[in-house]
Amino acid sequence: MVPDQLGINGFVLLQDEEHLKLGTDAMLLSDFARIPKGARVADLGCGNGAIFILLAARHPSCTLHGVEIQEKSYHLAAENIRLNHIEDRAYAHCADLRDLSFLPSDSFDVVVSNPPYMKSGSGLKAENPALLAARMEIDCTIEDVCRSASRLLKFGGSFSLVYRPDRLEDLFSALKAANLAPKRMRLVQNKVDAAPSLVLLEARKGGKPGMVHLPVLCIREASGEETAEIKEIYQR
Amino acid sequence: MVPDQLGINGFVLLQDEEHLKLGTDAMLLSDFARIPKGARVADLGCGNGAIFILLAARHPSCTLHGVEIQEKSYHLAAENIRLNHIEDRAYAHCADLRDLSFLPSDSFDVVVSNPPYMKSGSGLKAENPALLAARMEIDCTIEDVCRSASRLLKFGGSFSLVYRPDRLEDLFSALKAANLAPKRMRLVQNKVDAAPSLVLLEARKGGKPGMVHLPVLCIREASGEETAEIKEIYQR
Repeated sequence: MVPDQLGINGFVLLQDEEHLKLGTDAMLLSDFARIPKGARVADLGCGNGAIFILLAARHPSCTLHGVEIQEKSYHLAAENIRLNHIEDRAYAHCADLRDLSFLPSDSFDVVVSNPPYMKSGSGLKAENPALLAARMEIDCTIEDVCRSASRLLKFGGSFSLVYRPDRLEDLFSALKAANLAPKRMRLVQNKVDAAPSLVLLEARKGGKPGMVHLPVLCIREASGEETAEIKEIYQR
Repeated sequence: MVPDQLGINGFVLLQDEEHLKLGTDAMLLSDFARIPKGARVADLGCGNGAIFILLAARHPSCTLHGVEIQEKSYHLAAENIRLNHIEDRAYAHCADLRDLSFLPSDSFDVVVSNPPYMKSGSGLKAENPALLAARMEIDCTIEDVCRSASRLLKFGGSFSLVYRPDRLEDLFSALKAANLAPKRMRLVQNKVDAAPSLVLLEARKGGKPGMVHLPVLCIREASGEETAEIKEIYQR
């Protein structure tokens, strides 16, 4: 396998046909998440590490911990850390995100996640178990993800994730149960007249109610060409 | 006072400077709400009756009940019923929407509402008490509105409302507590690059989870001109 160039400070990403490849959701989440200088960041369900490698490329002062339950994906994530020479600030853990007792509570500034979107049993089929687990709530539910994010975060720390708009109600309810207050939200549409396909959301541990909405993010113009904003995000 | 022409089947609307005038939110909600043939519809906090008069104009077979706690607004609503000669199918009630025991439970197909958006004490000032009550949760909270909507609705009936996107979390939580499942949602933005200013939402009593998102509704083009969709809604 030959790693792909990410086009950011010489960073690369090793991918694999069997696993979820770097997609719009990972690109958009890594751009949407706000990472303070020197932040400690955790990625829950990091897959091959796409998001945390993008974050490492863009935020040289941050420390990253990626958690992935699937062994093959975890090995790719670990390999991506080595390939990018960030072993001093990036760590991959092969673990169940429902039991992260090896990571200290209340110690992270930011948690990010691109969790499985589909309810288990919703009829989704995928070519292999790794892809299926990345897309469906087999290894964890949205409640599990929010609970773990909240446990890891310092008070006032933020949890940024990408999710499906049609499960917004479940997401809000899971965040609330985990003491995470939605603070910033953005819907993503393929075109201006297409229904939203993704939602980007930032919640704050112990935050007060009150959410800022960003304008909808359109991926393509009516012509089919990528919008100026998407081009900018991909080049950032 | 001279009533304004609504431009729909000869219907008119008497308005008053002291009260909320027909605004984008009322126009959009009356278009967004799906009204089955022959439906029994309630409007909670109907003000001068703008929304139910629009619904009556567009849906000749439906029966409407408007509830308004402010006496002056209630009188305008009653006058608007008379002016449009729909006394046989539209009724205004001067009542507190927290106590609607005079209306039978589980008997409405649709409830609509343009409730106050602002939390009480959030510093909003208005020129007079009627305007203030229409905008701020003085007479009722979003929980009260959802609870009453749910009580009035038949099982499977729908509640459509217009609300503020920054209070989406409160809205979802109030709907859930009232056994109303969000089923259809649409954000409204002034322009494609402006943050959403309104959210239109339809929830179903006893509905299963799973929500359909409509594309964001833009009011104006970059040029400042109204979009084709808005023009169509205003002319419908």
